[in-house]
Amino acid sequence: MTDFLRVAGAQIDLSVGDLDGNGDRIVEVIGWADEIGADVVLFPELAVTGYPPEDLLLREAFLTASIETLHRIAASTGDATAVVGFVDRGYASARDDAGPPRLHNAAALLQGGRLRGVYHKCLLPNYGVFDEDRYFVAGRSPGALWEINGVVVGVSICEDIWVADGPHAAQAQGGADILLNINGSPFHRGKGGERAAMLAERARATGLPIVYLNMIGSQDELVFDGQSMAFDAAGALLYRGPQFAEDLFWLDVPLSESGRAGVEATVVSTGDLLEGEPEPLPSSHPPLDDLAEVYAALTHGIEGYVRKNGFNGVVIGLSGGIDSALTAAVAADALGTDRVWGVAMPSRHSSEGSITDARALADSLGIRFDVVSIEPPYTGYLETLEPLFAGREPGIAHENLQARIRGAILMALSNEFGGMLLTTGNKSEMSVGYATLYGDMAGGFSVLKDVYKTLVWDLARWRNRDGEVIPQASIDKPPSAELRDDQLDTDSLPPYAELDPILERYIEGDESVRSIVADGLDGDLVARIARMVDANEYKRRQAAPGVRITTKGLGRDRRLPITNHFRG
Amino acid sequence: MTDFLRVAGAQIDLSVGDLDGNGDRIVEVIGWADEIGADVVLFPELAVTGYPPEDLLLREAFLTASIETLHRIAASTGDATAVVGFVDRGYASARDDAGPPRLHNAAALLQGGRLRGVYHKCLLPNYGVFDEDRYFVAGRSPGALWEINGVVVGVSICEDIWVADGPHAAQAQGGADILLNINGSPFHRGKGGERAAMLAERARATGLPIVYLNMIGSQDELVFDGQSMAFDAAGALLYRGPQFAEDLFWLDVPLSESGRAGVEATVVSTGDLLEGEPEPLPSSHPPLDDLAEVYAALTHGIEGYVRKNGFNGVVIGLSGGIDSALTAAVAADALGTDRVWGVAMPSRHSSEGSITDARALADSLGIRFDVVSIEPPYTGYLETLEPLFAGREPGIAHENLQARIRGAILMALSNEFGGMLLTTGNKSEMSVGYATLYGDMAGGFSVLKDVYKTLVWDLARWRNRDGEVIPQASIDKPPSAELRDDQLDTDSLPPYAELDPILERYIEGDESVRSIVADGLDGDLVARIARMVDANEYKRRQAAPGVRITTKGLGRDRRLPITNHFRG
Repeated sequence: MTDFLRVAGAQIDLSVGDLDGNGDRIVEVIGWADEIGADVVLFPELAVTGYPPEDLLLREAFLTASIETLHRIAASTGDATAVVGFVDRGYASARDDAGPPRLHNAAALLQGGRLRGVYHKCLLPNYGVFDEDRYFVAGRSPGALWEINGVVVGVSICEDIWVADGPHAAQAQGGADILLNINGSPFHRGKGGERAAMLAERARATGLPIVYLNMIGSQDELVFDGQSMAFDAAGALLYRGPQFAEDLFWLDVPLSESGRAGVEATVVSTGDLLEGEPEPLPSSHPPLDDLAEVYAALTHGIEGYVRKNGFNGVVIGLSGGIDSALTAAVAADALGTDRVWGVAMPSRHSSEGSITDARALADSLGIRFDVVSIEPPYTGYLETLEPLFAGREPGIAHENLQARIRGAILMALSNEFGGMLLTTGNKSEMSVGYATLYGDMAGGFSVLKDVYKTLVWDLARWRNRDGEVIPQASIDKPPSAELRDDQLDTDSLPPYAELDPILERYIEGDESVRSIVADGLDGDLVARIARMVDANEYKRRQAAPGVRITTKGLGRDRRLPITNHFRG
Repeated sequence: MTDFLRVAGAQIDLSVGDLDGNGDRIVEVIGWADEIGADVVLFPELAVTGYPPEDLLLREAFLTASIETLHRIAASTGDATAVVGFVDRGYASARDDAGPPRLHNAAALLQGGRLRGVYHKCLLPNYGVFDEDRYFVAGRSPGALWEINGVVVGVSICEDIWVADGPHAAQAQGGADILLNINGSPFHRGKGGERAAMLAERARATGLPIVYLNMIGSQDELVFDGQSMAFDAAGALLYRGPQFAEDLFWLDVPLSESGRAGVEATVVSTGDLLEGEPEPLPSSHPPLDDLAEVYAALTHGIEGYVRKNGFNGVVIGLSGGIDSALTAAVAADALGTDRVWGVAMPSRHSSEGSITDARALADSLGIRFDVVSIEPPYTGYLETLEPLFAGREPGIAHENLQARIRGAILMALSNEFGGMLLTTGNKSEMSVGYATLYGDMAGGFSVLKDVYKTLVWDLARWRNRDGEVIPQASIDKPPSAELRDDQLDTDSLPPYAELDPILERYIEGDESVRSIVADGLDGDLVARIARMVDANEYKRRQAAPGVRITTKGLGRDRRLPITNHFRG
C-alpha cells in the first residue's frame, strides 16, 4: 500500500479586478474539493485579483478589498487545504518613499475556515510581458514547508520553478514529500512542451512528484492555455489537463516512502490521508498540434476579450483577402455566427473577387453580410480637398483616405449597433507598417496581430481541413491592399516567405542586420526591412491590442522607443 | 587659500540610438573641458546611448556598438577626467537563461586617452516611467572612490542620490571630498524644487559639496529640464543651470580641509589642482515660474519630437476652442510660425465663432490657415450608410463620423505635404474618454495630453500676458465639441473646475472613490467619473504619445488593464 495525496486543481478562468466574482468561484470550487475528499486544492497565481492586475496594485482600495476577499474565501474552507494566489502586503523598506507600495505575489494556505500560512514568490520575472519588480518584492523564505495531513508540501509560484536552483530545491532538501506550483503562465506557441520538459526535469532532480496548476482565459493581449500537469517522482507524466478549457481535476499522487523525520514544517491541517488504494488516474488530454493550438489561442483570446468587456458581437471589414477571412472565421468559431457581422466596402480599385470572395466567406460561415460602397464619401473628400490638392497626382494620401473611409464606416456601424470592430492586420504588415493608421488599423482588438502572414495561410488551410470554409480564392490570390489599380504587396515588399523569417529574426530574435545577412541574405533588403520596422514604431504604438502567441508580440513585451536613431 | 576642483558640466541634448552623433558631441565637449582647464567634466546618465534606450538594450549589436563608441570617446580624453554615462555589460547570473542580458547602468571615468574606472548604479528605479530592473542589475560597490588630481571623488547616478542612505553615504564615510551625480531625470511640474531640497540635504548630511548634472531634451513622452545644480558642503547653492536649454558650465568647487589620510581610492588622474584663488562662480539661472515652466516643457517636448523624428512641420485642426489654440501657440513658439499649419473644418453644427476665432488665432500667430468643409464627405457617409441607418435618429455614430472626417482630412494633408498631425486633446478629456478615436485623437503627437483643462486655461492666459495672442473668445467660451447643435461639455461632464481635482486624485493619487468622496463630494458623481476613466482605457491605449508634465501621465507610467472589473 502506497501513501498518496489527493490533489485537486482548479484550472479556471478568472477576471482581473472582479474580486467578488473570483471569490465566489473560488469558494464554489473549494466546496467541490471538500466533496471529492481532496487533501489539497490548487488555484492559479493571483487568483483573487485576476492576473495580471498591473497598476491596480498601486491602489490601496484595491489591495484592501482583495485581502477582504481572501478572508471571505478562507472562512469557506473545510477539510481540504486551498492554495490560493493573492497579493500580500509586505513590510516597508528604506526605499518605499521613492516608489510604490511593496507587495508580495503570494499563495495563501487556507483550511478549516482559517488562514494557515502564506508563501511569498521568490523569483519575480521582470522581462518580456512581466513587470513584477514594479509591484512586488521577492520572498525571503524559499524553503518554507507545510504539513498537510502528515504530508510535507513545498509550495511555489510560477517563475520559482523555472530556475534550476529555485525554491523547489530548498524545499526538497528540507524534506518535502511533494511540490505544488501555481501559475499564471501566458501562452506562446509550443510553450506546453517547454513546460513539460522542465517539470519532468525538476521532478527527477528533486525525486519528488510535482503538481503544476495553470489558469486559462485571456486578459487583454495575454492568453492562458491551462494544460496543468502532474509528474511522479521519476518525472513520468501522471496527468495533463486540456488546453484553453476549464478543468476541475483531481488525482491521487503517490508519495515515496523516504523518511520525514526531523522535518520542520508549518502545520496546516492535521487530518488523516485517505486509506486504501489510490483511484485510477484521470485521462490525460493530448496536447494540441501546432496549428490547432495557435487557432485555439486566437479563438480563446477574442472570446475572452469580447465577453469580459461586455460587447454583444463584432464587426469585421471583409476585403476578400485572407487576413479578414481568417479573422472572421476565428471570430465566428469563438463567438458564434450570429455575433459576427461582415461588411465589404468596395472602391473603384477593388477587384471583382473582393466582393464575391467576401460574400462566399460570409455565406460559408453563415454570418451577416453587407456591402457599403466607399465611393460617396471618397468623392466628398476629393471635392472638399480639391482646392488644396489641385494639380497633384493621387498618391499615398489618396490610398490612406480609402482605408480611413472604411475604418470610419466600420466604426459608425460599431457605434450605432454596438459590436466591437476587429482589425484584420497580421504581424508581417504591422511590423513593416504596411497598414493605415485610423484606417485598416481602426478597431478595438486584433486577432492576427502576432500572426505572421505565412502562418495566416497555414491557419486558413488548417481551418479548411474538413472542407472549404475560407474561399480557396482568398488563399490563392496574391496579397493586395487594393488601394490603387493593380497594386500588389510585392510591389514594395519581398514575398512573405522571404520577409517573415527576416522579421522573426529581427523582432523575436533581436538580431542585427549584419547577423541576419550573414546567412547569405541580401544586405540592402534586410537593412531596408529593419528600417521599416523601426520607422513604424509610431503606428504600432497606436494599434489595437491583439492576441499574443509568440515569445515577443508587438505589445507591451516589445518596448522600443519611437524616437530612435540606431540603425543596425 | 582654499583647494578647489574645477568641475565642468555638459547639460546637453543627446538622442536615443544616435551613437555616432552622441559620441561626436561628447568628444567635442571634452575638448572644451580641456581648454578651460577643468579637472572633471560630467555628462548625463546613459549619455552614449541616449536616455532611455528601452529595448534597444536587448540587442547585442546595439550594446557592442555603444561600447565601441565609449572607447572612441575614451581615446579623445586629455587631462580632464570625463564622467560619461554608458551601458556596461554585467556578469552572467544563474537567472540569465530565464531573461534578457543583465547589464549595468554605468558611469565611465575616462582620462588621458584611457578608461580608468567604472561605477555601476546601485539603486535602480522600477516604478512610474522607469523600468530599470528590466535591463540592469544593481551595482555592488556603492562606496567606490576615485582620486582625481589628489581629490577623492564619489560618483553616483540619478536614483542613487534620492535615497538618504544611498551610495553617497558610503562614499562620504569612505573619505570622499566631493560628490558627483549624473542624471537622466525626467521633468514633472515642480520637480526642480524637490531636487534642490534633496540635494541641499545630502550636502549637509555628508558635509560635502555636490555637483548634480542633468540632461535636457525630449524622448517620446519624456522631457528633461536640465537645471543642473551645485551645492557647497553646507548645502548652499553654488550654481543652478537654465531649464530646457543647453548649458556648458564650469565652476571651481571649494573643498573642505578635512583629512584624507588612509582613503582607498582608484587613481584616475595624477595631475595638479589649479593654484591660486578660484574663479568667481557663474551666474545662476532662477527657476521658471510654474506656468512658464510647464509651457517651456511643452515647447521643449514638441520641438524635440519633431526634430528628432525628421518632420518638416506640423498640421493642427483649429476648432476655435482653447485646446487647439493653445496647441498651435505652443507649436508656433517651439517650431517657428512657418512650420505650423492651422486648418479649420466647419460643419453644420459649428458655431460662427469656430471659424472667426480660429482665423484670429492663426492671424495673431502668423501661421498658415485654411478652411476645409467636412460637409461633402459627411453627406457621402450619410448617403452610403443610408440603407443600414434608415429610420434611425442621429446619435453618437454621427458625432463620431464628423470627428473622424476631420481626422482623415488632417491626415490627408499630413500624408500629402509631410507635416505631422498634432492632436489637441487635454488630460481631462483623455481621462474620461471625451474624445473620438481616429477622429480628434488622430495624430502623431499630443501637446496637452498631460495638461488638465483648468491648466489649459491658465496657460492660455499666461501666454497672453504681453498681449492677446490666443483670442479671448476662445478662452471665455464654454467648452463644446460642436458635434451636434448647442452641445456643451457640461451636458455630460461636471464643470472642469470640479472635474479636474477629482481626476487628479483618482489618477495621480490612485485614490479610491470612497476616499475622494470623504471630502464631501457627490458620491454618484465621483463613481461615475471613476467609471468613465476606467472604461476608456481602451481609447488611451491607442492615443498618440504626448508630453509628460505630471507625476503620472497617461502613457507608459500608468499601466492599467483594459479588461478590468474593479470598481472602487
